[in-house]
Amino acid sequence: MALSVYLAGQIHDDWRNEVRKKAEQKALPLHFTGPQEDHSLSDDIGEKILGEQPSKEYHDDAASSINNFRTRILLQKADVVIAYFGESYKQWNTALDAGSAIQAGKPLILIRPDSLIHPLKELSNQADVTVKTIDQALEVLAYLYK
Amino acid sequence: MALSVYLAGQIHDDWRNEVRKKAEQKALPLHFTGPQEDHSLSDDIGEKILGEQPSKEYHDDAASSINNFRTRILLQKADVVIAYFGESYKQWNTALDAGSAIQAGKPLILIRPDSLIHPLKELSNQADVTVKTIDQALEVLAYLYK
Amino acid sequence: MALSVYLAGQIHDDWRNEVRKKAEQKALPLHFTGPQEDHSLSDDIGEKILGEQPSKEYHDDAASSINNFRTRILLQKADVVIAYFGESYKQWNTALDAGSAIQAGKPLILIRPDSLIHPLKELSNQADVTVKTIDQALEVLAYLYK
Amino acid sequence: MALSVYLAGQIHDDWRNEVRKKAEQKALPLHFTGPQEDHSLSDDIGEKILGEQPSKEYHDDAASSINNFRTRILLQKADVVIAYFGESYKQWNTALDAGSAIQAGKPLILIRPDSLIHPLKELSNQADVTVKTIDQALEVLAYLYK
Amino acid sequence: MALSVYLAGQIHDDWRNEVRKKAEQKALPLHFTGPQEDHSLSDDIGEKILGEQPSKEYHDDAASSINNFRTRILLQKADVVIAYFGESYKQWNTALDAGSAIQAGKPLILIRPDSLIHPLKELSNQADVTVKTIDQALEVLAYLYK
Amino acid sequence: MALSVYLAGQIHDDWRNEVRKKAEQKALPLHFTGPQEDHSLSDDIGEKILGEQPSKEYHDDAASSINNFRTRILLQKADVVIAYFGESYKQWNTALDAGSAIQAGKPLILIRPDSLIHPLKELSNQADVTVKTIDQALEVLAYLYK
Amino acid sequence: MALSVYLAGQIHDDWRNEVRKKAEQKALPLHFTGPQEDHSLSDDIGEKILGEQPSKEYHDDAASSINNFRTRILLQKADVVIAYFGESYKQWNTALDAGSAIQAGKPLILIRPDSLIHPLKELSNQADVTVKTIDQALEVLAYLYK
Amino acid sequence: MALSVYLAGQIHDDWRNEVRKKAEQKALPLHFTGPQEDHSLSDDIGEKILGEQPSKEYHDDAASSINNFRTRILLQKADVVIAYFGESYKQWNTALDAGSAIQAGKPLILIRPDSLIHPLKELSNQADVTVKTIDQALEVLAYLYK
Repeated sequence: MALSVYLAGQIHDDWRNEVRKKAEQKALPLHFTGPQEDHSLSDDIGEKILGEQPSKEYHDDAASSINNFRTRILLQKADVVIAYFGESYKQWNTALDAGSAIQAGKPLILIRPDSLIHPLKELSNQADVTVKTIDQALEVLAYLYK
Repeated sequence: MALSVYLAGQIHDDWRNEVRKKAEQKALPLHFTGPQEDHSLSDDIGEKILGEQPSKEYHDDAASSINNFRTRILLQKADVVIAYFGESYKQWNTALDAGSAIQAGKPLILIRPDSLIHPLKELSNQADVTVKTIDQALEVLAYLYK
Repeated sequence: MALSVYLAGQIHDDWRNEVRKKAEQKALPLHFTGPQEDHSLSDDIGEKILGEQPSKEYHDDAASSINNFRTRILLQKADVVIAYFGESYKQWNTALDAGSAIQAGKPLILIRPDSLIHPLKELSNQADVTVKTIDQALEVLAYLYK
Repeated sequence: MALSVYLAGQIHDDWRNEVRKKAEQKALPLHFTGPQEDHSLSDDIGEKILGEQPSKEYHDDAASSINNFRTRILLQKADVVIAYFGESYKQWNTALDAGSAIQAGKPLILIRPDSLIHPLKELSNQADVTVKTIDQALEVLAYLYK
Repeated sequence: MALSVYLAGQIHDDWRNEVRKKAEQKALPLHFTGPQEDHSLSDDIGEKILGEQPSKEYHDDAASSINNFRTRILLQKADVVIAYFGESYKQWNTALDAGSAIQAGKPLILIRPDSLIHPLKELSNQADVTVKTIDQALEVLAYLYK
Repeated sequence: MALSVYLAGQIHDDWRNEVRKKAEQKALPLHFTGPQEDHSLSDDIGEKILGEQPSKEYHDDAASSINNFRTRILLQKADVVIAYFGESYKQWNTALDAGSAIQAGKPLILIRPDSLIHPLKELSNQADVTVKTIDQALEVLAYLYK
Repeated sequence: MALSVYLAGQIHDDWRNEVRKKAEQKALPLHFTGPQEDHSLSDDIGEKILGEQPSKEYHDDAASSINNFRTRILLQKADVVIAYFGESYKQWNTALDAGSAIQAGKPLILIRPDSLIHPLKELSNQADVTVKTIDQALEVLAYLYK
Repeated sequence: MALSVYLAGQIHDDWRNEVRKKAEQKALPLHFTGPQEDHSLSDDIGEKILGEQPSKEYHDDAASSINNFRTRILLQKADVVIAYFGESYKQWNTALDAGSAIQAGKPLILIRPDSLIHPLKELSNQADVTVKTIDQALEVLAYLYK
C-alpha cells in the first residue's frame, strides 16, 4: 500500500532530503510531496510568472498565491502529513498547514525539538503523534507496514 | 442578524477588550468568544483539574487538552474568525486556529502589522480579508450591517 | 417557519426593494440579505477601510475581498437563494454566486427574462425553479407556506 | 503525479487546443477535460438524443441537461480547474462552473484579460491564482512539478 | 427540545392530520412539515405560477420543480423523517424522499402495512425504525421525551 | 477515462445485459455494477448465509441486509447511476437508490416510459437527464467521450 | 452560551443525576441528554411498541432500533459528548457512541477510573480530554464559561 | 473490483489469518488491513519509538497514539469494515472502531457469537450485516462478486 506524505515545514535547509533518503533506506513505499524547496524560486515565483508588482507586499502576495495553489493540491492528495518545526524561523506556514490538515482529517505527525514543547503544546495535543526527530517519524511510518 | 466572532491570537495583552469595546461603541450585534484570557489559568488548567503531572511536558499537554477542547467548541459555533498577529510571541496557535478555520469554511479576517507581511504572506493570501489594525477589522464587520 | 433568502444579482437598480415590498404585502416570514446595495460604497469599500491602493486593479481587489467576505457569511446563513438576471450588465457575480449556492446545496430560484434563455440555459437547468418575474419568484416562496 | 485539469470557458474558438499543445511541449503529466467543444453538437445534443422538443426553450433545456451531466462528472474527477474569460460572449457558464469549483474545494486558476479586471474582481479574488494569458496558466501548472 | 418532523408520503388522504392530532393529544413538542397536501394545487402549481406549458409532460415538470423546491427546504430543516406507505398509489416520491433522507443522515421511521413487507424490505432494513401504524410511529416519537 | 456505472432497477428481466451489450458495441470504457441479478438468489441470500429465520418477514429482512450491503459498496464506487423504470413491478428500490444517489451527488440518468411521466415527475425533475430508452441512455454516456 | 451535552454510558446506576445536580450547583447553562435511563423500559421498548417478537434476539433488535433512533437524534443535536466508563458492565454502547461522536467531530470528554487505563488507552488518546471523575468533567465544562 | 477490508477486533489470537486464508481459498480480490497483530509490539511501540515514559499510563498513551495513527489511515482507505467480537477480552477498541466506521459511512459486517446478542444489540442494529461466524462473513463478501 503506497502512501503520499506531505512534508510541511521551512525550506531553509534540506531536512526533506534526509526524510526521503531514510525512507528509501527502509524501502518504504512512500511518495513525498511538499512546498517548493528552492527558496528564491518560491519567493520570486509571483513576479516570475505574473510580472513586476507595485511593491514588496504585492510581490509577496503574488508568490504566495502560487505557492498556496501548489500546497492545496498536494495536501488534498496526501494520505499523511508531517509538520516539522526547528528552532529557527517563524514557521507560521507550518502551523497553518498543520491546522488545515487536522481539520481536513489528514493524519498528522509533528516533529518538534524539546525546546519548543511549551509554544507548540496545542498543536502537539492535536497531532496524531508527536516525535522529536526525523528518525522517529520514519519509524512511525515504518510501523504502518509491519 | 447576530453573529459569533472567535478571536484567535495571543493572550498576553488585552487586545480582545479593545475589540469588544469598539464593537459596543458601534452597537454591532456581535458575540465574541476566544481562548482563556487569564494566562496563568490557561497554562495551569491541566494540573488544576487533573492533578499533578510527571513533568513540564505533561503539565503542558494536560493544559492544552482542555484549552483545545474549549477552542473546538467555540470555533464550531463561530460565524467569523479574527486572527490577530502582533510583533511579539511565537503565535503558532494563532496560525493553527487560522488553518483550522479556513479549512472548516469559516470566513477569516487577518490583522497583521506591516512588519509581518513577508512571514505571513501565505496566511494573508488565504484569509478573506487582511487588515493592519483592530479598527479596520471592526469596519469590515460593520460593513456586514450596512 | 422563518427563512433567510439571499438575493444575488446586480446592484444598479432597486429590484431588491421590489422583492422586499412584495414579500411584506404577502406577509411572508422571510428575511432578505444580499450584497451591498450602495454601488459606490461597494466599489470603494476597499480603499475606504484599507487605505489607498497602488492601482485600479488593487483598488478593485481590495473592495472585492470585503464584498466576498460579506457574501460568504450571508450565503452560509441563507436557506434559499434567488439569482436575478436582467438584460444589462455582465452579471458574472450573479452566476458565480449561483454556482456556489448550487454546489453548497442551497435551493435556488433563477429569475431570467425570455431574451436570456439561451445563454443561461445551463444555469436554468441546474436551478431548482426558473421564473421570468419577481412576482413569480414570490409566488414560489409563498407556496412554501400554503 | 498525473493531474486532471478541467478547462471551463467558451467553446467558440480553440483555446483549449492551445492549452493542450503547450502542456505537451512542456511534457507536463496533465489530462485535460472540458465541455463539448463542437459547438453545434453541444447546442443540439438534446434533440439529437431525446427527439424534437416543443420550442426553442425546451430545445435548450434538453441540451443543457446533457451538457450539465457531462460537466458534473468531469468536474468531480478534476484536481484543478482553469476558468478562461475572453472579451467576447456572455460566458455565464464559465462563472457558474467557477463558482461550483470553488465551493467544491477545487483549486482554480482564472485567466482574464486586463479589460475584464473590474467585472471579474470578485471571481478573481476567490480564485487561487489569477493570470492574464494561457502561457502564464501553464507556468503555474508547471510549477507543481518543479 | 422541539423537533421538526417531515411527513413523506401520498397526499390522497389526510393521514397527516391524524399524525398531527395524535401528537397534540400527547402534547409532544413536534413541528410537522410535508409536501403540499392540496392535491390539485400540487399538480397545477407549475402552470399556476409559470403559465401554460406546451404539453402534459411539461405541465408535470413545471409543477414538480416547485414541489421539489419545497421538499428540499423542508427536508433540510427536518430533524426526523417519517415515510408512510399504504396499499394504494405508486408512492415513488415517498421512496425517493426516504432515500434522500437516509443518505443525508436524517433519522427515519417507516410506516408500512404487513402486505408491503416484501416490496419494501430494503427500505425497511435501511430505516431506523419500521412500524405498522401511525400510533406506533407516535409512540416512537414520544419515547424521545421519556 | 473509465467510469463505473451503477444500474439501479428491477431484476425480473435482463435489461442490464442489453445495456452491457450496447456499451460494448459502442466500445465505451464503462464498468457496470448493480444489484444481484439472480432473483431467487437475491431473495434467499439471507437464509442461505444466516440460516433459517423465524418468519417470512425475517427471511426478507435478512436478505435485504445483505443486498443493501452490496448496494452501498457499489453505489459508493459509482461515478454515474442509471435508474430504470418499466411498466411492471413496484420498483420502490429503484426510487430509493435514486434518492440516495442524488443526495450523495452522483450524476443520475432516469430511464422511464411515457406512461410513467406523471408518477415519476419529481424524480425526473431531480435527475440530471431523463430518457425513454436504453439506447438514449447509452447515447448520453457516449457523449462523455465525444 | 447554552450547550447541549450528551451523556453516553451505562444506565444501571444514576450517575447522570450526579452530573445534572452538580452542573446545577455550578449554575452552568448546560442541557443534558442521553439514552433512556429506565433500564427495563429501554430493554422492553421494542415489544412495547411493536408487539411480541419471535425470540429474545428479535426482542433485543426491536428495542435497539428504537434506542438507536433516539441516540442518533440526540447525538446530532449535541455540542459536547461525555463518555463515562465504570468498572462494571460491558459498556460497548459507550465505546460505540464515543466512536460515532469522534468521527462526527463532536468534542468528547472521557471519564474513566484508573483501573481501565490499559483497555481504554486508544479511546482516551482519541478523546479531547480524559478525566477520572464526574467532578473533573464538570470542571472542564465550567472552564468553557470562565 | 478489488476492495480493501479493515479487520477490527482483538489481537490475542490469529482470527485474521483464518479470514485471509479463507478469502484466498475463495479467490476473492480482497486486500485485508487491520491493527498491529504482534501484541507485544503493539503494546510497546510507544516506548520503542519515543523512549521511556514516566509511568504505565504514559507508556500506554504513547503506544496508543501510534496505533491510532495506523488505524485512522487504514480505516480511511477501507471500503468495508469487519468488526469481530469473541467471548473474551474487553474489546472496547472494536466497538470504538465500529462506531467510527459507521459514522464515516463505511459498510460494516459484525461477527458476534450468540452469547453476546444482548450486550451488542445496538451495534448489531447499526451494522449493515450481523453474522455469527467468519465463514458467514466471507460468504457475505463473496456475494459482492456473484
